[in-house]
Amino acid sequence: MTSIHIDHVAVVVEDIDSALGFWQQALGLECQGIKDIQEEEVQVAFLEVGESHIELVKPTTEDSGIAKYLAKRGAGMHHLCLRVNDIDAAIVQMQQADVEMINETPRVRDNGTRYAFVHPRSTGGVLVELYEKA
Amino acid sequence: MTSIHIDHVAVVVEDIDSALGFWQQALGLECQGIKDIQEEEVQVAFLEVGESHIELVKPTTEDSGIAKYLAKRGAGMHHLCLRVNDIDAAIVQMQQADVEMINETPRVRDNGTRYAFVHPRSTGGVLVELYEKA
Repeated sequence: MTSIHIDHVAVVVEDIDSALGFWQQALGLECQGIKDIQEEEVQVAFLEVGESHIELVKPTTEDSGIAKYLAKRGAGMHHLCLRVNDIDAAIVQMQQADVEMINETPRVRDNGTRYAFVHPRSTGGVLVELYEKA
Repeated sequence: MTSIHIDHVAVVVEDIDSALGFWQQALGLECQGIKDIQEEEVQVAFLEVGESHIELVKPTTEDSGIAKYLAKRGAGMHHLCLRVNDIDAAIVQMQQADVEMINETPRVRDNGTRYAFVHPRSTGGVLVELYEKA
């Protein structure tokens, strides 16, 4: 992994508009869009901050994993996404280091990007997403 | 705030060495040092990731705020630090937008950097540190 940076920090919120009051209006970050992702049962807003993004995530159903997380833990940072050049190589590297993957093989989004989550047990408590741009 | 980026994501951990097994050994991030910050009752490791850092933070006493956070919430992401050009202007901007600051005036570290925390109530649940490099 020669090049790696923070792609985004995902923040679970109760309400997108209310959170935008801070991240967009007060801080002045550019909101690059709000969209419903039906298959993940969330509404998401993307805000640009340097080479990274803040992703505000609001559950749109009551029984998704993210809805349960919000109910149990409250609003706040949910996961950290790191962009890597080659996700296949990254997963092999994780496994060789005895890091526990939630996804042993990459999952694929509609836009072709591939990603895999690392179990928080292996990272010091952080849900880490590894992500390769399509 | 014309320029703003993620300075660091602070991660509260039970054990620095164990967490470095992921962030340094498995991911390959460069560890830029480990130091004890006695006045904050923590040991901290800094890892470079793109233009940002991961800060692993381990409480070194049992009754600090960070130790209580770890006992109550468990290991994981603790706060998000955004670097701004002018922290005085940033705080005024926050106050004009009715954002609740934990520190209404910047605090100063030994190395001269100035910082102020924003209350999670105003951000959608994230403890946000605003920081101006010395």
